[in-house]
Amino acid sequence: MDKADVIIIGGSAAGFVAATTVKTHYPDKDVLVIHKDGKVLIPCGIPYIFGTVGSTENDLLPAGKVFAGAGIRELIAEVTGIDREKKVCSTKDGDEIGYEKLIIASGSIPNSPGWLKGADLENVFTVPKDKVYLDSTQLSINVLKKVVVIVGGFIGVELSDELNKAGKDVTLVEILPHVLGLAFDEEIAIEAEGILKERGVKLITGNGVKQIIGDKKVTGIILDDNKVIDADSVVLSVGYRPNTVLAEKTGLSLTEQGFIRVDEYMRTEDSDVFAVGDCAEKRDFVTRKPCNAMLASTACAEARTAGMNLFRLSAVKTFSGTISIFSTALGDHGFGVAGLTETKAREEGFDMVTGVFEGVDKHPGTLPGAHKQKVKLIAARESGVLLGGEVSGGPSTGELTNLIGFLIQGRMSINTILTSQIGTHPLLTASPAAYPLMKAAGMVAKSMTGARKPDDQEKKGASGTMQSTTSVS
Amino acid sequence: MDKADVIIIGGSAAGFVAATTVKTHYPDKDVLVIHKDGKVLIPCGIPYIFGTVGSTENDLLPAGKVFAGAGIRELIAEVTGIDREKKVCSTKDGDEIGYEKLIIASGSIPNSPGWLKGADLENVFTVPKDKVYLDSTQLSINVLKKVVVIVGGFIGVELSDELNKAGKDVTLVEILPHVLGLAFDEEIAIEAEGILKERGVKLITGNGVKQIIGDKKVTGIILDDNKVIDADSVVLSVGYRPNTVLAEKTGLSLTEQGFIRVDEYMRTEDSDVFAVGDCAEKRDFVTRKPCNAMLASTACAEARTAGMNLFRLSAVKTFSGTISIFSTALGDHGFGVAGLTETKAREEGFDMVTGVFEGVDKHPGTLPGAHKQKVKLIAARESGVLLGGEVSGGPSTGELTNLIGFLIQGRMSINTILTSQIGTHPLLTASPAAYPLMKAAGMVAKSMTGARKPDDQEKKGASGTMQSTTSVS
Repeated sequence: MDKADVIIIGGSAAGFVAATTVKTHYPDKDVLVIHKDGKVLIPCGIPYIFGTVGSTENDLLPAGKVFAGAGIRELIAEVTGIDREKKVCSTKDGDEIGYEKLIIASGSIPNSPGWLKGADLENVFTVPKDKVYLDSTQLSINVLKKVVVIVGGFIGVELSDELNKAGKDVTLVEILPHVLGLAFDEEIAIEAEGILKERGVKLITGNGVKQIIGDKKVTGIILDDNKVIDADSVVLSVGYRPNTVLAEKTGLSLTEQGFIRVDEYMRTEDSDVFAVGDCAEKRDFVTRKPCNAMLASTACAEARTAGMNLFRLSAVKTFSGTISIFSTALGDHGFGVAGLTETKAREEGFDMVTGVFEGVDKHPGTLPGAHKQKVKLIAARESGVLLGGEVSGGPSTGELTNLIGFLIQGRMSINTILTSQIGTHPLLTASPAAYPLMKAAGMVAKSMTGARKPDDQEKKGASGTMQSTTSVS
Repeated sequence: MDKADVIIIGGSAAGFVAATTVKTHYPDKDVLVIHKDGKVLIPCGIPYIFGTVGSTENDLLPAGKVFAGAGIRELIAEVTGIDREKKVCSTKDGDEIGYEKLIIASGSIPNSPGWLKGADLENVFTVPKDKVYLDSTQLSINVLKKVVVIVGGFIGVELSDELNKAGKDVTLVEILPHVLGLAFDEEIAIEAEGILKERGVKLITGNGVKQIIGDKKVTGIILDDNKVIDADSVVLSVGYRPNTVLAEKTGLSLTEQGFIRVDEYMRTEDSDVFAVGDCAEKRDFVTRKPCNAMLASTACAEARTAGMNLFRLSAVKTFSGTISIFSTALGDHGFGVAGLTETKAREEGFDMVTGVFEGVDKHPGTLPGAHKQKVKLIAARESGVLLGGEVSGGPSTGELTNLIGFLIQGRMSINTILTSQIGTHPLLTASPAAYPLMKAAGMVAKSMTGARKPDDQEKKGASGTMQSTTSVS
């Protein structure tokens, strides 16, 4: 029987990073990655195969190459059973492979659209992380014209924009008042909607889908208000759920939300079995509640933690919880969020203060390619500790969002931000005198010290919220 | 006699931010900014007036507009004396204005090129933050062809690139082995040199200028090795020194380096007089030694600190020291540095470990506009606390450098970085599985835990340095 020191089940972002981290930190260990598909898609690139990236072939993790270079073994097979007592994995082909430590990175699968009448019609597609399925979807969609995308989360928005870019007539349907409405505060979501519409995507918000209609093939959808939208195809992007089939089979506990239960070292209840990525339990960094943000970046952070702690626990290398941190782009306009939105913070009952500033991402603003840049910060009123932030801007939006993410994870306060230095350059950042992050922090500080006038307090119908959107280049 | 609650002397970045911060935190105070020039240049935009920005008129701080909107008074005048006993400023025109609190933001002036023979010839220019002088320089340079720029610091490099862009034949002369050699480690400086050369700038390094030659007008320069370079103009960008004339006149102490002595609240020895920006004392955040980084971004951080503490000291709003943090761009290629370089850390005797990773700033790397992105981190070996970082990449270089800057200022460790989440998006950032900051941190962690092989140790002739530049898209 084959044996490896470490078996990793799954070769997407979490499995990939777990493997390379283990090999970096424990170079003498024999690491084996078992995954079903030889070609592994970059998950966040999937919406872009329909437009900018062109095909799944251009959206592959260079896993094989990296594994080979790092001395990591790879086996293309489907693990169908784990015997935790014998410490053996068995595959569909009947092979058995022993392990000392096991990392489960079995990912997620799209929510079943079974609840929706007509979801089984021809030309209704989902968005799994499955190259074969997506290749066939792309072939089908190539000859179709009028696409309805359901619903307007990140994937739905990105898909709509890319299908529109590819020349389709795209209608995006979202039951909430705004697309991206769960991710961003209303004012940022409205900005994103404006850009989507400008680019040609039709939006239907505050209206659900009652039924997909057609005879064999899709011919349209019926909305909750009984309006009919004609369509020759429907893409369902209604979320994902953890893939825990293997874990359940081997008797590992799941959380109420259906994730594999893990501790801060990413260990399951079996200390030789770790779980990372979309299949593993998540707890919100700020609210400390269970959360279900399934993001490649979170998966990678968990994978690094598991990889480092696999044979040697370290109390300073624990995972402190998930912050919702993501960014997206519509053309050259980026949107990013880290931590809690104002809406979420209010729902959770945080006593908080917000600040907003809009400037430009180069200085002077007369420079070619200058793009507006808006930053919103949400901080705890008592301590000034940052709870969340949102960015709307140009190509630097992703890294500025990550910067805010580190401030949150470092539990840094508004005062620390205000007394810190940032580097600025005409072609690369906003002006030092009007750097939106700093100006937004200044707004928060002003509210905290009570310097605001009484009439500002209720400006947005929300105590403690103060906005200034003076544009200073 | 006129009187203001607060007088701020100087209206450039530091004075501007001091004024708006004071007014934000103390809205009831009467704030008066006194500065010499009605039109204030954005200092870091100055090199760009010769090419990308086009003229000084496109490089102005919108100070007047912002001041008016915020209810800040502005007086165009030159302060020539401060009577600290009477708490009165007097101007060249003979006006006297009383103050309760005073902030000196008198900036810096170019180092005199008096030591250099021929520096007084016609068509030899310096780069002061003076609109009238720069406008006249630009007019003169417009009709000249062959420019020598001395030396290759940030301003020299940016000026050379812009003058080259404007069609001039540009030679940049630097006495150190590499341009930007004081700011970046050698390997990054060499990258920058490669790009400069590619773009058409001629470089002479490791060679000083002995003399500027010509009869009335410049005709060339003589190098230390006696080689002659023909030129019809010379731009001297040989650094700046603090402008402390007023401070000295009123008896405020200066440091050995010639800056106005201040504490962590930015107070001078007179607790009613603060000093901020290029004229104020600087101490390095990491080494704790005096330092002379004169950057608009540092100036703004000091100005925020002074502004917040002006009437009400706060022990959590102190300035903890300067980190060298800046970025620059050559075309679409950005370079950034925060904190100590490896060279500097070694000179200072830090026991440190470095890690380098090169990837791409979008994912998959096949996306249009994808740009390579390299991150180098320098951390204390014992604690993993980050000492410095360098970035070479695309348009997100500035914000990624700022992210590293916050990690340093938050005294965050490599372990904190590795267990943190970053958000990633195909169009905006590197891949979550190969995010260069994380991969570089992984390299550092590997060295810290002693997992490296002995032959890696001396790879760069430097103990503890380990590099991997695997490119993973």
